[in-house]
Amino acid sequence: MPMFKVPDHQVAGHQALNGQLGPLIDETGLFYKPLQEDERGLREAEFYKTFSADVRVPDHIRKFFPKSFGTKLLDASDGSGPLSHLVLEDLMSKYENPSIVDFKIGSRTWYPQATDEYIEKCLKKDKITSSLSLGFRISGLQIYEGQESGYWKPDRKVTIKYKPEDVRMVLRKFVSVNQSSDSKKESGCSTFASSVYGGSSGILAQLQELKSWFEEQTIYHFYSCSVLMVYDKESLAKGKEVVPAIKLVDFAHVVEGEGILDHNFLGGLCSLIKFISDTNKDCLQNQGS
Amino acid sequence: MPMFKVPDHQVAGHQALNGQLGPLIDETGLFYKPLQEDERGLREAEFYKTFSADVRVPDHIRKFFPKSFGTKLLDASDGSGPLSHLVLEDLMSKYENPSIVDFKIGSRTWYPQATDEYIEKCLKKDKITSSLSLGFRISGLQIYEGQESGYWKPDRKVTIKYKPEDVRMVLRKFVSVNQSSDSKKESGCSTFASSVYGGSSGILAQLQELKSWFEEQTIYHFYSCSVLMVYDKESLAKGKEVVPAIKLVDFAHVVEGEGILDHNFLGGLCSLIKFISDTNKDCLQNQGS
Repeated sequence: MPMFKVPDHQVAGHQALNGQLGPLIDETGLFYKPLQEDERGLREAEFYKTFSADVRVPDHIRKFFPKSFGTKLLDASDGSGPLSHLVLEDLMSKYENPSIVDFKIGSRTWYPQATDEYIEKCLKKDKITSSLSLGFRISGLQIYEGQESGYWKPDRKVTIKYKPEDVRMVLRKFVSVNQSSDSKKESGCSTFASSVYGGSSGILAQLQELKSWFEEQTIYHFYSCSVLMVYDKESLAKGKEVVPAIKLVDFAHVVEGEGILDHNFLGGLCSLIKFISDTNKDCLQNQGS
Repeated sequence: MPMFKVPDHQVAGHQALNGQLGPLIDETGLFYKPLQEDERGLREAEFYKTFSADVRVPDHIRKFFPKSFGTKLLDASDGSGPLSHLVLEDLMSKYENPSIVDFKIGSRTWYPQATDEYIEKCLKKDKITSSLSLGFRISGLQIYEGQESGYWKPDRKVTIKYKPEDVRMVLRKFVSVNQSSDSKKESGCSTFASSVYGGSSGILAQLQELKSWFEEQTIYHFYSCSVLMVYDKESLAKGKEVVPAIKLVDFAHVVEGEGILDHNFLGGLCSLIKFISDTNKDCLQNQGS
């Protein structure tokens, strides 16, 4: 019987803390996401089922998605009794101290077929956040700052108000060397930027690979879906070879593409690539700063 | 004193017919667009002024924009007396029988800074038309069908309701050989598709060039702007070498980019490229059909 516990490195979404409903993990590297009994839960389960069997999805694209293993009935984290959970790969299980940024992609988090009420709710949030202006917003993040100070993990009330300059600050901090426990103080980002953002297997290369697929694929439209960017800063600092990862998560609002490009996701993805690419250039130009 | 007349080949926008206010042309190849005395007119005049002096715009991108020559006071087409007009290059002056499609680009025709009232008005239209689903809509078109039948020019009431399959039909007709006066009947598109859409200076190559700029440029955001696609079918049929043209028009809703990609335009442009590329492949695969 596996032991279930609350994930250590969840930066966005509902959390299984204080008796609330949220995902659980076990020690074998699995992530259990409660299937809320509404359309969203059903749609996400349906997506994983369809996607895992979809021969139109090329192999090199599958690595961007969590592996899925069907559903399983287990005691919900809120004590409400047995509930069906999606069984997924725990993307964080192999990291000791993962630095993570969760970007919700798309200037529009709602789909054309949604109800007026739902559209209005989403549109309001897209306007308040950076979604409308940048084509994406930061849904959550944690950046490891060393053994003493632990993680810098700004509250959701803060990240929701992020302006373009805050997004740039986060992207710099993500690749900055840990020097200070003062999270406001920025330190050099040139060393890590080239290893994490640059290079043939870095974040930018992976995002470009994903972009190429979105320039072709007309199977799925990913509304309100997130791109996670993860790596282990400590390992990199110790000189280990570290491959940063790009992962897509949250498929409760995926709809059929019907032969049309997902221009909403693609536009947002291009904007994110531009932000990271600009940050990378800035870090390399200001070496030693 | 030049003679002003109503343009022969206008497919979208206000028209100077029946005493209404609209653009005029002269015999020297100039196009006079009345500057309506509201924010839109001022903004479009301002755009042309800024753009023409903007050293950040590369030369190879300027060819996609009409040349501009300041403003000129002339008698308005609605007889209301002297009115300031934008003086632009008449993009159609060199064509005898231009086939034209006007695509309004972007799934969103409104900009974040707009008033709630304006946003609501635009959003409603984006939902009715294909803008929201495809990332662009056809604002107008004319396709030359030969000396006898002249132009196929569906009414705006028809084009506004175009579904994806109608857009594909237009894209096929645009490169179809004129055989029949019956506009519903489609004829072979393989011959012209490769000359018009394909090739190193065809529509697709030009759109890709434009796309590359939009993947980099963060100077301007083009809301409610159109991409025109033009060529002379008759000339091509006669074996003349014909270079189809891509032109951007309508800049009354251009705002500053402020360091951010125009992800709304870029997403829509990618979707349009995918539609044309799919049509081109279909035409070539069904040779003789």
